[in-house]
Amino acid sequence: MGKKLSKKNIVVIGGGTGVFVVLSSLRNYPYNLSAIVTMADDGGSTGILREDFGILPPGDVRRALIALSHSDNKILSRLFNYRFKEGRGLSGHSFGNLFLTALERLTGDFNRGIVEAGKILNIKGSVIPVALKPTHLMALLENGKVIKGETNIDIPKHNPEFKIKKIWLEPRARLNPEAVKAIKNADFVIIGPGDLYTSILPNILVAKMKEALKKSRAKKLYIVNIMTKYGETNHFQASDFVTEIEKYLGRGVLNHVLVNIERPDTKRLKKYREEKAEFVEFDGENLKKFPYKIIKAKILRPRGLLRHDFCKLARVLWNLVSS
Amino acid sequence: MGKKLSKKNIVVIGGGTGVFVVLSSLRNYPYNLSAIVTMADDGGSTGILREDFGILPPGDVRRALIALSHSDNKILSRLFNYRFKEGRGLSGHSFGNLFLTALERLTGDFNRGIVEAGKILNIKGSVIPVALKPTHLMALLENGKVIKGETNIDIPKHNPEFKIKKIWLEPRARLNPEAVKAIKNADFVIIGPGDLYTSILPNILVAKMKEALKKSRAKKLYIVNIMTKYGETNHFQASDFVTEIEKYLGRGVLNHVLVNIERPDTKRLKKYREEKAEFVEFDGENLKKFPYKIIKAKILRPRGLLRHDFCKLARVLWNLVSS
Repeated sequence: MGKKLSKKNIVVIGGGTGVFVVLSSLRNYPYNLSAIVTMADDGGSTGILREDFGILPPGDVRRALIALSHSDNKILSRLFNYRFKEGRGLSGHSFGNLFLTALERLTGDFNRGIVEAGKILNIKGSVIPVALKPTHLMALLENGKVIKGETNIDIPKHNPEFKIKKIWLEPRARLNPEAVKAIKNADFVIIGPGDLYTSILPNILVAKMKEALKKSRAKKLYIVNIMTKYGETNHFQASDFVTEIEKYLGRGVLNHVLVNIERPDTKRLKKYREEKAEFVEFDGENLKKFPYKIIKAKILRPRGLLRHDFCKLARVLWNLVSS
Repeated sequence: MGKKLSKKNIVVIGGGTGVFVVLSSLRNYPYNLSAIVTMADDGGSTGILREDFGILPPGDVRRALIALSHSDNKILSRLFNYRFKEGRGLSGHSFGNLFLTALERLTGDFNRGIVEAGKILNIKGSVIPVALKPTHLMALLENGKVIKGETNIDIPKHNPEFKIKKIWLEPRARLNPEAVKAIKNADFVIIGPGDLYTSILPNILVAKMKEALKKSRAKKLYIVNIMTKYGETNHFQASDFVTEIEKYLGRGVLNHVLVNIERPDTKRLKKYREEKAEFVEFDGENLKKFPYKIIKAKILRPRGLLRHDFCKLARVLWNLVSS
């Protein structure tokens, strides 16, 4: 009459490479993983497909699927990430995006397409678009200018010195019922890391997301970025990220905040300095004002891009989820 | 001490839907199937990819792969055949062609790409490009005009009343060593059905093909088309097809010729009359002049397009291969 130990349900919310990093960290742990990804992306290959086919943006779905793939066929996930470098009208397109677009057309439904792609890639877990209709991200800058489109905020045509005062979605988007279910059944929700205004908050802005998170008995963690992004989070310290998240999510929804305190050497920072990206400082005093458990950890990748290290992050998350 | 019964090696040579029909007929029989397909295709999606990427033409490879696929995932083969109907630069492209193009780029080699696609599609058998370099099909018409390119012969811009006097390849192409091996080890070689000048003969024209077929101990069968094609085989009877094949292959290389004698009703012929395509008559007297066993059989599909019926064809081929 042993008690059955069921796997914990972990929900990861975000977009871009942040979701990929968290999913990759946890993919071999005994968790049920769900990724909820933003549907406001409108740049590059994704933006063209979105416009020409009227489909939901495939880019973030693609990255999450690859992270969850357990296919023995390594070529398949490399193929999914392949980007055409030549060809009239093909150059710049990600093959995985075309894959998802063709599957959407074939099955008549983006969700069905994701499920079928998941079968082909043998994913463990699920990838859920945050909303079932595409939407546009809007931003009001401190100079009063309104910017339309995720890609115009992500890669600013305006002067990136101006701060973002407020963002919203047009048209308003409503939380995908699959996402409602996943958040309801979650034991642990991880928000971020990722570009604050273009990858993370577009999820929080979706109607019913705040309520779903509030209602869920899951512990909620926000992972602060390692580096600032010029045009979005200029000179942000850790507490600034949390302040902005709170502005849209409300106070007291989160339980934990995870901040990296492993500082990269100046050599690795040099490349980032050109892009005016700075190391996010752990400003302990400011962080004290939040009613969250603040966790500081050395979770920087030892070399290459300044991102969270899969293994270090996994250990921290494992301890948090188990506690 | 039982004698091991090994599977017979069947090689199918052609292009277009003909190869697909023969492979589909035989796919569930205990044969080792190899398809050798033409590399002179330069029309449509294939033509664009060939030009932009400098790759071998993927179209015929794609069709053969689908025919040999034993994947449980039916969506995958449907996806492989999916053609984009929208999208700047995407419209008209077959997804399977993009799949093969991306795999070629990823593996650095068209043959490797085919092998990897075969794994993903779980094919039984192999698909072999007849040559390892793309080539152009050239045609001299009876009025002295020279036409360049398979697609300009397939879909004539010239007056289709003019007969094709001669075809050749530019640059000359050499038989793929894999094809040499397959033909050498074959027990049975099936040539056709398919468009005579644009799908069948471009294989025969490849240097060393004739020699490989002559040397092989395999029985060789040519399957005559059910319908003529305007601009290629205007008013051809069965014997005219064999005469043309002999012109390029030489006398006595073939062993058998299979001709359909099941006549479609006038209703089914009506649609074809608009395209000036006619039923190919079994002209027994003329066929007697060839040193081949002429087999006549009722092998027409009972409805839809005027093509060979998978099951009827399979039965005839099974008997032939077993005899």
